[in-house]
Amino acid sequence: MTGTPPGVTWCVAPDDERAARAVWSALAEPGDAVAGALVQACGAAPALAWVADAVATPHPDWAVLETLGGGGDDALRRRVGLGVARWAARWPALDPERDRAAAQRCGARLVVPGDPAWPRGLDDLGVLTPFALWVRGAPPVADRTLAVVGARASTTYGERVTVDLAVELARRGWAVVSGGAYGIDAAAHRGALLGGGVTHVVLAGGVDRAYPAGNARLLEEVVRAGGSLFSEVPPGATPSRARFLQRNRLIAASAQATVVVEAAWRSGAASTAHHAARLLRPVGAVPGPVTSAASAGCHRLLRDGVAVCITDAAEAIELAGDVGPDLAPTPDAGVTRPTDGLDPLARLVHDGLARRTARDVTVVAARAGTTVAQARAMLGLLELEGLARRTASGWVVADGHE
Amino acid sequence: MTGTPPGVTWCVAPDDERAARAVWSALAEPGDAVAGALVQACGAAPALAWVADAVATPHPDWAVLETLGGGGDDALRRRVGLGVARWAARWPALDPERDRAAAQRCGARLVVPGDPAWPRGLDDLGVLTPFALWVRGAPPVADRTLAVVGARASTTYGERVTVDLAVELARRGWAVVSGGAYGIDAAAHRGALLGGGVTHVVLAGGVDRAYPAGNARLLEEVVRAGGSLFSEVPPGATPSRARFLQRNRLIAASAQATVVVEAAWRSGAASTAHHAARLLRPVGAVPGPVTSAASAGCHRLLRDGVAVCITDAAEAIELAGDVGPDLAPTPDAGVTRPTDGLDPLARLVHDGLARRTARDVTVVAARAGTTVAQARAMLGLLELEGLARRTASGWVVADGHE
Repeated sequence: MTGTPPGVTWCVAPDDERAARAVWSALAEPGDAVAGALVQACGAAPALAWVADAVATPHPDWAVLETLGGGGDDALRRRVGLGVARWAARWPALDPERDRAAAQRCGARLVVPGDPAWPRGLDDLGVLTPFALWVRGAPPVADRTLAVVGARASTTYGERVTVDLAVELARRGWAVVSGGAYGIDAAAHRGALLGGGVTHVVLAGGVDRAYPAGNARLLEEVVRAGGSLFSEVPPGATPSRARFLQRNRLIAASAQATVVVEAAWRSGAASTAHHAARLLRPVGAVPGPVTSAASAGCHRLLRDGVAVCITDAAEAIELAGDVGPDLAPTPDAGVTRPTDGLDPLARLVHDGLARRTARDVTVVAARAGTTVAQARAMLGLLELEGLARRTASGWVVADGHE
Repeated sequence: MTGTPPGVTWCVAPDDERAARAVWSALAEPGDAVAGALVQACGAAPALAWVADAVATPHPDWAVLETLGGGGDDALRRRVGLGVARWAARWPALDPERDRAAAQRCGARLVVPGDPAWPRGLDDLGVLTPFALWVRGAPPVADRTLAVVGARASTTYGERVTVDLAVELARRGWAVVSGGAYGIDAAAHRGALLGGGVTHVVLAGGVDRAYPAGNARLLEEVVRAGGSLFSEVPPGATPSRARFLQRNRLIAASAQATVVVEAAWRSGAASTAHHAARLLRPVGAVPGPVTSAASAGCHRLLRDGVAVCITDAAEAIELAGDVGPDLAPTPDAGVTRPTDGLDPLARLVHDGLARRTARDVTVVAARAGTTVAQARAMLGLLELEGLARRTASGWVVADGHE
């Protein structure tokens, strides 16, 4: 290793992991598994030093492959070689000082794995764990964090459901993570703020760029309300289609579960759901009218068994949370009928009664398909419950005690 | 066995299974598992003769318990004893001749297991298999039969979806079974008729009674169009809540799969779905807005994993049919993007291009996160596909060949 390669006016100290991770976040495209494996195997600073060397010389030191567990492996050597070529293409444009200054200007800081502000859920991404996060505000480190994502081309229905969901999640102390896009994402952030909660925006580009521009005010409000904007690329970086897709893995990984509200058949929201599923995190989908193309992606997730059907915040929390305290109440509990507590035989007999026509016990038994003795016993029980009434000409239905 | 018991003016010949089953259909309440077990163990006529005896004497011949496989079993003896008491309550009102005459008046016939017109799917009900069916028209014996059921309190959305579903099922040669109720059931029958198909109504009361009365014309049309009305209780029998619930098992058992469109949280449609699930027949549920109480039962079935999410007829047929010829097409097939066939690397490079700003290969590589060599190769490929264009100042996006 020969130190700073020609043309590079900066240098990372061999033990400065933090600075090295900042450089890696600019050097490798999000989702670059080779870079991730290299950093995990060697450490960010040694890996960077190796790349600096490899970029500068036509004959890099391939001993690094042994660290990656495949010294004589041609395929691995080819993959790392391609990585070096990719990183070489970006090397001249690296400028850690510029990134640092840009971060400072927009009030962002660098968070790396192990920092108290690091969302530990991201570590489950393995070699796809981001090298670092550039963060404005306080990133999601709490346990109770749910991703709520969906279509940009949302409907009034979808937005209403999303706002309701996020308001209620916020009220119950859950943070909401989303992508800051128009439509469902924005409704999720807005709902969380409305509910007095905390919300986080994972951006595909730099945190100094409000993207989309129309949501700039919302993004500022997110930070002011105690949430965060964060990104794995440095301030100044532009969002691209590939980065939007990679960004989705961070949304999924920083939350305990992901709920999709409205998604077209092919959509970024569905990709977030699949990222969550790959991480073995629970996925929920909110259904909608089958006549609405905006819900087609949700229905597909339900059909494919990727997602559980979610209709309200309680069910979303049950999805993400512990069974027990977080279990959604069954609506059943509220709706009761006077005959609910009865045993099946009493119900049968109750069904054998009419409201106006008085019936003899034997007639009730024949109608109910019970024995006369059973009918007699159950009529006594129903009378006690106020559900049957004895008249001069026989038995009739009563409406229960008020 | 002493032949005709006192007060009974009719008699079934010991080998007349058909006549005996007709009597059983009037004697035992639908879903009477003890009666079902007795008939399956002894045959309908011997079982009826035994009951005639048991009803008439205080000391029936309990040797019958051995046929049921539990000679010395007190619990079994008690269950059969209760059965005898139930049947005794109805015995005086039995009048097979009246039932036969009523059937004749309304153009109904008796169908028993083994008849060509017997829907074989019913046999999966075991001891809950109906003794006989009273049928107007031609009952569902074909393989391609789907149950479509749902709420009486349906919405315009639910009815529209149901009609569309049933029309398409009919066009594809599937028969539609339902319960003839207002709301979704009626929409299912109507849709099947509109699609030029065959549809079947399983009634909870006698087939001579159009229930509900408002659907009388629809029910007549069902028969005229080559379908059927059928019931396990004789003509003249009234529908009761218990019979509606039992009727649902016949809907589920006579179809290869059951699809629920709109169902309240507690509902008959959900009970039909559970019957189908217990028979290990596939169950589908059509989702709707989570803000609609009419869809709550469908969403519950989806949440509980009882039902698969169904959004159109193709998916319903896939649910019921063979995998392969009946597989629903993925909407994907239709929607294509120019970059669809490309490999991921080419897509990355495509993402690195802009529409207006021409970019150099090295810039494209740095943006795409590829090597310069990869970018160059992929740009060549994209140019061939008409997706990238070389200008004097660099590369730009092109729109693909028309």
